[in-house]
Amino acid sequence: MNEALFTANNLWLLVATVFVFLMHLGFATLEAGLIRKKNTVNILFKNVMIVSIGLLTYYIVGFNLMYPGMNEGGFFGFAGFGLAAPDAPAIEYADGAYTYWTDFIFQAMFAATCCTIVSGAVAERIKLGAFLIFATLFVSISYPITGMWKWGAGWLDALGFYDFAGSTLVHAVGGWGALAAIILLGARSGKYTEKGIRPIPGHSMPLAAVGVFLLWFGWFGFNGGSVLSANPMSVSLVFVTTSLAAAAGAMGAFIASYFLFKTHDLSMVLNGILGGLVGITAGADLMSPGEAIIIGGIAGVIIPFSVVFFDKLELDDPVGATSVHLVCGIWGTLAVGIFGSMAGMEQFVNQLIGTAAIGTFTFAFAFGVMFLLKKTIGIRISKEEELKGLDIAEHDMAAYQDIENVQSYELSVK
Amino acid sequence: MNEALFTANNLWLLVATVFVFLMHLGFATLEAGLIRKKNTVNILFKNVMIVSIGLLTYYIVGFNLMYPGMNEGGFFGFAGFGLAAPDAPAIEYADGAYTYWTDFIFQAMFAATCCTIVSGAVAERIKLGAFLIFATLFVSISYPITGMWKWGAGWLDALGFYDFAGSTLVHAVGGWGALAAIILLGARSGKYTEKGIRPIPGHSMPLAAVGVFLLWFGWFGFNGGSVLSANPMSVSLVFVTTSLAAAAGAMGAFIASYFLFKTHDLSMVLNGILGGLVGITAGADLMSPGEAIIIGGIAGVIIPFSVVFFDKLELDDPVGATSVHLVCGIWGTLAVGIFGSMAGMEQFVNQLIGTAAIGTFTFAFAFGVMFLLKKTIGIRISKEEELKGLDIAEHDMAAYQDIENVQSYELSVK
Amino acid sequence: MNEALFTANNLWLLVATVFVFLMHLGFATLEAGLIRKKNTVNILFKNVMIVSIGLLTYYIVGFNLMYPGMNEGGFFGFAGFGLAAPDAPAIEYADGAYTYWTDFIFQAMFAATCCTIVSGAVAERIKLGAFLIFATLFVSISYPITGMWKWGAGWLDALGFYDFAGSTLVHAVGGWGALAAIILLGARSGKYTEKGIRPIPGHSMPLAAVGVFLLWFGWFGFNGGSVLSANPMSVSLVFVTTSLAAAAGAMGAFIASYFLFKTHDLSMVLNGILGGLVGITAGADLMSPGEAIIIGGIAGVIIPFSVVFFDKLELDDPVGATSVHLVCGIWGTLAVGIFGSMAGMEQFVNQLIGTAAIGTFTFAFAFGVMFLLKKTIGIRISKEEELKGLDIAEHDMAAYQDIENVQSYELSVK
Repeated sequence: MNEALFTANNLWLLVATVFVFLMHLGFATLEAGLIRKKNTVNILFKNVMIVSIGLLTYYIVGFNLMYPGMNEGGFFGFAGFGLAAPDAPAIEYADGAYTYWTDFIFQAMFAATCCTIVSGAVAERIKLGAFLIFATLFVSISYPITGMWKWGAGWLDALGFYDFAGSTLVHAVGGWGALAAIILLGARSGKYTEKGIRPIPGHSMPLAAVGVFLLWFGWFGFNGGSVLSANPMSVSLVFVTTSLAAAAGAMGAFIASYFLFKTHDLSMVLNGILGGLVGITAGADLMSPGEAIIIGGIAGVIIPFSVVFFDKLELDDPVGATSVHLVCGIWGTLAVGIFGSMAGMEQFVNQLIGTAAIGTFTFAFAFGVMFLLKKTIGIRISKEEELKGLDIAEHDMAAYQDIENVQSYELSVK
Repeated sequence: MNEALFTANNLWLLVATVFVFLMHLGFATLEAGLIRKKNTVNILFKNVMIVSIGLLTYYIVGFNLMYPGMNEGGFFGFAGFGLAAPDAPAIEYADGAYTYWTDFIFQAMFAATCCTIVSGAVAERIKLGAFLIFATLFVSISYPITGMWKWGAGWLDALGFYDFAGSTLVHAVGGWGALAAIILLGARSGKYTEKGIRPIPGHSMPLAAVGVFLLWFGWFGFNGGSVLSANPMSVSLVFVTTSLAAAAGAMGAFIASYFLFKTHDLSMVLNGILGGLVGITAGADLMSPGEAIIIGGIAGVIIPFSVVFFDKLELDDPVGATSVHLVCGIWGTLAVGIFGSMAGMEQFVNQLIGTAAIGTFTFAFAFGVMFLLKKTIGIRISKEEELKGLDIAEHDMAAYQDIENVQSYELSVK
Repeated sequence: MNEALFTANNLWLLVATVFVFLMHLGFATLEAGLIRKKNTVNILFKNVMIVSIGLLTYYIVGFNLMYPGMNEGGFFGFAGFGLAAPDAPAIEYADGAYTYWTDFIFQAMFAATCCTIVSGAVAERIKLGAFLIFATLFVSISYPITGMWKWGAGWLDALGFYDFAGSTLVHAVGGWGALAAIILLGARSGKYTEKGIRPIPGHSMPLAAVGVFLLWFGWFGFNGGSVLSANPMSVSLVFVTTSLAAAAGAMGAFIASYFLFKTHDLSMVLNGILGGLVGITAGADLMSPGEAIIIGGIAGVIIPFSVVFFDKLELDDPVGATSVHLVCGIWGTLAVGIFGSMAGMEQFVNQLIGTAAIGTFTFAFAFGVMFLLKKTIGIRISKEEELKGLDIAEHDMAAYQDIENVQSYELSVK
């Protein structure tokens, strides 16, 4: 391959990697903003650790589980621990080429995102140790195995299932993990009472808004990088469909939440943007701009209804992660069978099979691990710890210091 | 054209698009930081909606109004609703080439910025509905029409008017819209009193500082992408002039505000950076580094004087948007006739004509729309709503939750 | 050279420049988060001014001091004030090429970072004027001179000293400056008391966490750009080693701080990430992924011990800058002699010589300047100013406004 073209293609994947990396900050600030002050250090801690655990375990086992380079059409493969030597040749794929290292680091940045999705849903009541063990197993075993089924040339790929950048493989996987976890964990104290559902508003809407903008920013790398080359027509189309779906998601959530709640609910519009982004992810390369707007708009409309639905079931999800990533992830995956250049009944059935198979495996894995943790070390903090907040209970630290402590100390000793 | 070079050029425009996108977060945090707590959700909501409205309307009508591809040298053209098919050929321009989709998404990211400028100026007292209607019309009709006059090969382009990346076409346009709006809207209650001008400090200087850094970050895409290719010499020169003008803007505002107020005013220095960036935008490709420093430094000096000037006129602009975008936008546009490789009396006159023509059209459009809205649905919230804040009045929501509500609830029921 | 390859290489350096630029926001938010509320405007002000001063002085003298293009193997050279004409030819280096302007702006973004490191360490008690004078001299004279010794083909380069992206040339240099400054400045009032060390917690952990994520983001440009081309194999390997070292740094600090303090200390883990990044910077292009994990992990373990060590010496560093940048900078520089493709006793000695020579020069320069400032205009604010906070003392401004002042004003006049 032409050296300059190789360089440009590889460069785009690296830049996309950096953009995807920033999604971890996006998740951290979004989740921190949507929870209470007293659990903020804890959620930041978890998000920082997840990126680190995700990268390290993807180096140790994840990458070789997800891309075993054997058993094409199979259910499981493993190419061994660690990474091969740095003189590995360039990987050619579709109309691009990139290096082995580029392949690893781009994929590694994806891996940690599904745990971050779980992190938001279980916020404010999970034990730190239990969560870190769960996250380690989820990201290093469950995510790469189902990832292999499609992106590692496994059986779903052979079947014809399509998921461009991970509406199912990343987002619904994180969403299923979140669902399993919140079922076993139970709701936050005081959320569902005899007098009805008590809203627990997030402590900082600026942090939440920062998070959504950064996630949108990162999604240009997430979807744009999934072209796996810098092919001008493909990447630029993906940019257009991704952006318009996000914008339509905002609009859909704006209208639907006004209809439902008779107010202009910022958190719904923020989640509507994320819903639109998750929804377009499976078919961002297949849709026309108009179809992207329809898919994103429907995802946005789904958001407030889904949030109400989970609340009715008393499944407490402080940040709406199940609505955004699970429900809109499924919607986006199925939409590939309804809209765009692959639409058709056969494709729709394939999308259903992939959704169901990956959902079943992931939910079972996550439920099993969480169940074992619940029966052994325990997954839920005590009532007293919940009242005090995880920041003090687990970290001996407050997220914000309002008192100028040395000043007051000095004045007091005068 | 060489495939690798096409790929690299197109890639730069896409990366620049992502950088420009982040300016929307920059505007959101800057504006949120410079206003009061009680209106923070509202400003975030507006900024989120503006990006979404901007992208969707630019898809529906804006792009085809701005680049009608006909009537060269004309005042108005329209190529029809929506976008053409994705098999559109690559667009060749200057020494670069990029796809039709790239062209659309890069330009679409610019479009929404001019509304965001208005959003800051009218903060803390405008009705949400009125603002959203205004923003929709402004971004989908006014901005693309005057944009076409220059960038769409219209009459100002034929005349010889020059505006590299939009000191006038984007920033002054937003500034004229802001000026029209704040004239009709009136000042915030309690700002101009019999006892003089009461400063209303912003509620979070960290948010404001984050905003300015992100805007500077995005400006590398805004100006650098406006080269419309990845031409090494052109883009790198633009990076140098843009950075030095921003730095000189900080320095100019630092000195001038110390001279005026005898203190080290962070908000002035932050706006000085933005003034420097707006000032260099019209001629970032024409200036030497030394000229960039002069242009940016003068813009920085202008900022505190302009802020004082608008306050003398009792034109209340909570974030200084008119000083930054209108005054420095005009300065930067005229500077093309004074400094750099196009300097000269004839060019200066062309710059004056362009400034005046676009200013007149935009001010008239914005004033007309706002006037009609004022006479129909009303543009100003009630005194009670202003006291309560827009967050409660329009969104039933507070930006920050200081009380750990469930905790206090639980303690109270014990 | 092939035009397309030239364009891709140059493009990567420009994009890396933008990433490095964002590190200034990372430093600003990290430092703001780790100090008290009452000094927040001041730290933001300093960080904004440092970028601006750094860029302007690097334009005036720094670049030509650092890359004099003469006296190869020498100690000092100066190519004159300002920058050459924009028609300067492309610079070819290693397997890449980039323009003169690209070279300048990429290097200029590095220059200001070492002052920012000092800024954090001296926070909450230094006079603004003294700091700005110190910063100007440090960034325009000290940093470029020692930088020239290696990157400008000076005597350390001739000797065989290696520092890929600046563990010593940038980070330890900043750290030595910080150490000299805090020795002369003394600790914050109330930090070291008869009853022992009083921790002074930072006022916003979300701001601190945002800072670390942004610094990690920027490090992709810092290390990746230091390849000085977009060579696919080199840049992608650097991305892998940089990311894994950061992740291992988090893990190392997590374990070591739990061992030391029996809690999950977020600020230690955040500094562990930075320690890992600083540690890998000298040899990011030489290490295997496994070696990167070892280097980063050790850096992470060092962090809590180093923080305790400096506290024992009563050297007060509010943000841990000396531990992160000085200690881990030295560790990373020496690690080039221990691990990776250049390891060996001779190389280790060269690394020691470089570390000692640059450390001695920088410490002496910084100590000398600070000492002169202390004896003339003074470097420390008064006790009263320290109690009030620098925001009010130097800027007449508070970082946060909790009172909705106009509301209370209006209610009071009713």
